Amino acid sequence: MNRIARGSFILSSKPAVIGFASAVGKKESEGPLSGCFDREFSDNMLGEESWEKAESHLQKTAVEICIEKSGYKKEDFDAVFSGDLLNQCIASTFGLRSLKIPQVGLYGACSTMALSLLCAGSFIESGLGERCIAATSSHFSSSERQFRNPLQYGGQRTPTAQWTVTGAGAVALAQGGGKVRICSGCIGIVNDLGVKDANNMGAAMAPAASSTIVRYMNDFGKRPSDFDMIFTGDLGFVGSDLLYELIKKEGYDIKENHADCGTMIFEREKQDVHSGGSGCGCSASVLCAHILPKLEKGVYRRVLFVATGALMSPTSSQQGESIPGVAHAVELCAK
Amino acid sequence: MNRIARGSFILSSKPAVIGFASAVGKKESEGPLSGCFDREFSDNMLGEESWEKAESHLQKTAVEICIEKSGYKKEDFDAVFSGDLLNQCIASTFGLRSLKIPQVGLYGACSTMALSLLCAGSFIESGLGERCIAATSSHFSSSERQFRNPLQYGGQRTPTAQWTVTGAGAVALAQGGGKVRICSGCIGIVNDLGVKDANNMGAAMAPAASSTIVRYMNDFGKRPSDFDMIFTGDLGFVGSDLLYELIKKEGYDIKENHADCGTMIFEREKQDVHSGGSGCGCSASVLCAHILPKLEKGVYRRVLFVATGALMSPTSSQQGESIPGVAHAVELCAK
Repeated sequence: MNRIARGSFILSSKPAVIGFASAVGKKESEGPLSGCFDREFSDNMLGEESWEKAESHLQKTAVEICIEKSGYKKEDFDAVFSGDLLNQCIASTFGLRSLKIPQVGLYGACSTMALSLLCAGSFIESGLGERCIAATSSHFSSSERQFRNPLQYGGQRTPTAQWTVTGAGAVALAQGGGKVRICSGCIGIVNDLGVKDANNMGAAMAPAASSTIVRYMNDFGKRPSDFDMIFTGDLGFVGSDLLYELIKKEGYDIKENHADCGTMIFEREKQDVHSGGSGCGCSASVLCAHILPKLEKGVYRRVLFVATGALMSPTSSQQGESIPGVAHAVELCAK
Repeated sequence: MNRIARGSFILSSKPAVIGFASAVGKKESEGPLSGCFDREFSDNMLGEESWEKAESHLQKTAVEICIEKSGYKKEDFDAVFSGDLLNQCIASTFGLRSLKIPQVGLYGACSTMALSLLCAGSFIESGLGERCIAATSSHFSSSERQFRNPLQYGGQRTPTAQWTVTGAGAVALAQGGGKVRICSGCIGIVNDLGVKDANNMGAAMAPAASSTIVRYMNDFGKRPSDFDMIFTGDLGFVGSDLLYELIKKEGYDIKENHADCGTMIFEREKQDVHSGGSGCGCSASVLCAHILPKLEKGVYRRVLFVATGALMSPTSSQQGESIPGVAHAVELCAK
């Protein structure tokens, strides 16, 4: 029995990471992780006619490089688990349709990279498939106009606002091989403390991150120090500080070995990103450009990857709703 | 090894259906399945302030009745797999947040009921959880204004147009018990034959339905006559006829034992629904009001449930894109 507690489980077959890839836009390729991404585009349109099509192109690029790096062909994959932020997840659907891989659509907002790893891991664990792919993407311009204002409007951004990453990540999983394994996971419970400020996603997601990390530690009887690093998805600077406060109340201190993907991908002052990066592609591209390479090299031996999502829509906010958050946790181990 | 072919698999533990429930609106409760639903609302607002909140209420109602009928409590469920048609899947997120069940968000458009059953089935099969729920919903008014026109506009509908069902369905799965089992499944490949008419979803989805049914039959070495019934999701009258044509070219005749949920839920002429019902809640509510009860009673022994989805968004259509379709298949067997 792999079940440990509600939503917490061990993957006893330890699904192996047999390939991974990231693809990002211009701003991301000029940040602290410059040179670490598999593909860095200098034009955020990627030669397409719209930002939405550019995002599809970006996700497809990450998936194609991931497949290539795995040493397999697209026909060798049993399923792809993917999602994105766009209405009806069109970045994933249109981006991957030409690959003709059986496709499972997910929606977890910016938590999607962890969610897709858990669903793909469950699929491998159950023996329903031999090899599959987990992927996601986001694009600054397609997100900005869908969730906030027309880009041309040029509105002033608040200090708590985050900058949606133009980026995609893809991870190939299999029943064996590779140097990194998925060892356990925890599916998040939707958490809503009543935050209504759509310009402060970090505050909406921090309670969910705290809740999932605390559940994970309690369910598995672990301490934060059991991990080389705990990475959260995209809380940014504001959300990370809130997480430290919230989790301290639960008896845990994670400051020593925590980093947030939203604070890693941009230089805060120089790149004018206010509270840091966000978007599905933020944790996905940092996972594939920084975390997995360091696990492969043995720099990290054990990492908890906790992607976080804010589950509102412009419609729900206009109707006066608060912003529910969710966070899913994946334990990644070097072999 | 449960894998049969790419995306096709046996669930050897045969996850059991331990509860199911449907909740629908006024028009649905006046149709041919009147009296078969667990809850029939006479007011499509359900006492809420908006159609979106009404849809959340509807999905929550189905999940709560499903949990009650299973004999368990919400705390006994390890995860809920759900999604809907609304931007950022807010019907599911907001609808189920108060239940505090670990939540996996899915997006498969109107194929979501089959997709959620397959993902929940994989989760049970892998032993990651003991009990989980698969659920989805749709609402005529929230869909109509999001995908088409303001309701007040009162635009003329084409003969090929379908009527989005105001309905929700929820199915509880467990490692044992129950009278109905999930025996096998097939994850759909996104299929795009270039259909661009957003008022003819049946035509966009029929190729996906044909593709998945053909893959299922070929992969498992079965014939349509091996099933008491093959139910498609929401092709409607126009899409069903297209499916017969397409699948005949592949050497299969399914006319004898096929029914489409979109043609079952409304009376075509009397209820003025043109090509029939559609929406995630169409196949979900017909599954829970008709198919599962008949499997429980042994009227059907073996059924192939093939929910179909059209994966476009208003943005993709405005950008000149065609409408990709997807269909996922689930084999349901009486014990």
